[in-house]
Amino acid sequence: SDSYSLLILPGDGIGPEVMAEVRKVIDWFQSSRGMRFDVSEDLVGGAAYDVHGKPITDETMAKAQSVDAVLLGAVGGPAYDNLDFSVKPERALLRLRKEMDLFANLRPAQCFDALADFSSLKREIVAGLDILIVRELTSGVYFGEPRGIHSDGNNPDNEGGRVGINTQRYTSGEIRRVARAAFELAKKRKNRVCSMEKANVMESGVLWREEVQWVHDNEYPEVELTHMYADNGAMQLVRRPSQFDVIVTDNLFGDILSDAAAMLTGSLGMLPSASLGLPMANGRPKAMYEPVHGSAPDIAGQGKANPIACILSFAMALRYSYNEGAAADELEAAVERVLAEGARTADLMGPEGGTPIGTAEMGDRIVAAL
Amino acid sequence: SDSYSLLILPGDGIGPEVMAEVRKVIDWFQSSRGMRFDVSEDLVGGAAYDVHGKPITDETMAKAQSVDAVLLGAVGGPAYDNLDFSVKPERALLRLRKEMDLFANLRPAQCFDALADFSSLKREIVAGLDILIVRELTSGVYFGEPRGIHSDGNNPDNEGGRVGINTQRYTSGEIRRVARAAFELAKKRKNRVCSMEKANVMESGVLWREEVQWVHDNEYPEVELTHMYADNGAMQLVRRPSQFDVIVTDNLFGDILSDAAAMLTGSLGMLPSASLGLPMANGRPKAMYEPVHGSAPDIAGQGKANPIACILSFAMALRYSYNEGAAADELEAAVERVLAEGARTADLMGPEGGTPIGTAEMGDRIVAAL
Ligand SMILES: CC(C)[C@H](C(=O)O)[C@@H](O)C(=O)O
Ligand SMILES: CC(C)[C@H](C(=O)O)[C@@H](O)C(=O)O
Repeated sequence: SDSYSLLILPGDGIGPEVMAEVRKVIDWFQSSRGMRFDVSEDLVGGAAYDVHGKPITDETMAKAQSVDAVLLGAVGGPAYDNLDFSVKPERALLRLRKEMDLFANLRPAQCFDALADFSSLKREIVAGLDILIVRELTSGVYFGEPRGIHSDGNNPDNEGGRVGINTQRYTSGEIRRVARAAFELAKKRKNRVCSMEKANVMESGVLWREEVQWVHDNEYPEVELTHMYADNGAMQLVRRPSQFDVIVTDNLFGDILSDAAAMLTGSLGMLPSASLGLPMANGRPKAMYEPVHGSAPDIAGQGKANPIACILSFAMALRYSYNEGAAADELEAAVERVLAEGARTADLMGPEGGTPIGTAEMGDRIVAAL
Repeated sequence: SDSYSLLILPGDGIGPEVMAEVRKVIDWFQSSRGMRFDVSEDLVGGAAYDVHGKPITDETMAKAQSVDAVLLGAVGGPAYDNLDFSVKPERALLRLRKEMDLFANLRPAQCFDALADFSSLKREIVAGLDILIVRELTSGVYFGEPRGIHSDGNNPDNEGGRVGINTQRYTSGEIRRVARAAFELAKKRKNRVCSMEKANVMESGVLWREEVQWVHDNEYPEVELTHMYADNGAMQLVRRPSQFDVIVTDNLFGDILSDAAAMLTGSLGMLPSASLGLPMANGRPKAMYEPVHGSAPDIAGQGKANPIACILSFAMALRYSYNEGAAADELEAAVERVLAEGARTADLMGPEGGTPIGTAEMGDRIVAAL
């Protein structure tokens, strides 16, 4: 069989710790399922800045472009908080997304039954929740020009004398391609897409709505499509999240709404993400996978972090990059089994207490459950 | 004593119904407290479009500019959904905000104890919640130029051939004045301000953070100030909303985050808002008050709507425009008393059922409780 290339970028904080557990999972799939992974590893974020003075090097970028999939842990931490905008650890993420053209960011918000009580929402509202947010990831106000902070001359009406500018810019083509990704995903789920924007206020939102509707009418008339203003979307996510199947939205709204949706589930340490681009010569999409949680500097180095989000991110790689859907299912089932048995890292301890297990033991138990 | 001028703009849907109840409250304060209100009324939104072909006329704008306070019901409805962007009912709101320069939008998110079970959040997380979101309302991506939808020529890389653009633009002066409003309000509350932006991604967010910090350090060092990225803010609002006192944020983030915060309380039909500008010659600020809920076309004309949000918006007018803080307290207490007695409009009926009262009866009971 083919070999699967993978670039691991552990990054900062708990990144390296959770990644070590993914290594165990990879080993298991190699030894027990005969898959062959060609794994390389590199620095990213603050770890790269410490060595190279920048959060990602051109060499690392080139590697990321050439592999089947990138798996990233997390970037950032207090040591880097006062760095200049242009070399902040987060710039590495933005550069990877932009240069690899990873336009479709898939963020499932799933509530694991064994963990429903962790949500701040009532159990009956959140149990069984299974939403997929598809966020446009390479355009919009994150990347639009002009941008920057300028002097406002001696404008007497502007106390402080500065102006900050960013540009929200979308092309019809950018909207159509992420809309297609959302409709394709919906077909494998409950066949419903809700598109969110502020078409009542922003012309870029009007374009968004029209182009999503165009793709629907011309290519996916069989999928149910609704439109919602993003402020109402935020409300409805809190009120009755189970009304949604797939949500498609732009880069900035997606950033906010997917974080809100993730938090609804109460399982932030559990949630993976995939960022997908165009197919490469081998037919596999450009791809990067990362847990939704951050680098969690407060618990870094203590062996306490929950590796499940990163392990589930690898499951998404199995599904979307390596076309190993059955293996992905197997890995996800192993995670659910271990949770159902009561294994809990510290972040998953309720007020009733109990003894948490560490990062390594959680990884071991998942491998054992495979 | 002075007379208080007030322009009532009932608008569309349930707007006129809830406004009729505010009229009763105004009458009570006139007859029982000797206040003198000089009330005029005009069309806005779809109702104005039907008559004048635009959602607000220059005459109405001029009146709004000249009174102590504007009280607006709600705008919009399905009959107007397909109108052109430039004459949509919402444009009236945006025009009022912009031309009156109402830069500080105060949106309290309060959970009424009697209604805590309406929240989708667990009672212990939401009971007693009392947050105040201060949203910048006259700038940012809502108003920045350039904006619009353009042809992308024959760009072969842009399927569809169009580009949608909006501009996020903030001046230091715009940020400072809304920051001051937030710090002043915090001093009368728990003395804490959390400022939210995306300074890790947007230069306008970097400017926002720096200017809020500048106002703090130079003018309000005694108020506790923290900064949070807006995506994390959305998460934290869902996770543990009681960590916040005053939140200050920009126009677009404020739109989304304040709607999420409003929904947390489970009392959307209960929440008022105030939009304040600079002081006029008489020392009173330019001001507009409106309920957070919309025009609710599904129940319009049925006498079912909850008038409390609009009545509490009038309470905010008493406090911020007419400097009648004691009267505002009195009115708010009357609302709480009526709720504690069990009076419920249809939107406040739980699964346990009961007999809802109508819009007019709720208004009557509040007046009776005064
Ligand atoms: C770290 C930051 C640049 C990033 C974003 O804003 O996209 C993060 O919030 C995310 O959602 O991946
Ligand atoms: C109706 C719409 C233009 C408005 C906004 O986006 O500001 C509304 O959502 C609000 O929050 O008042």
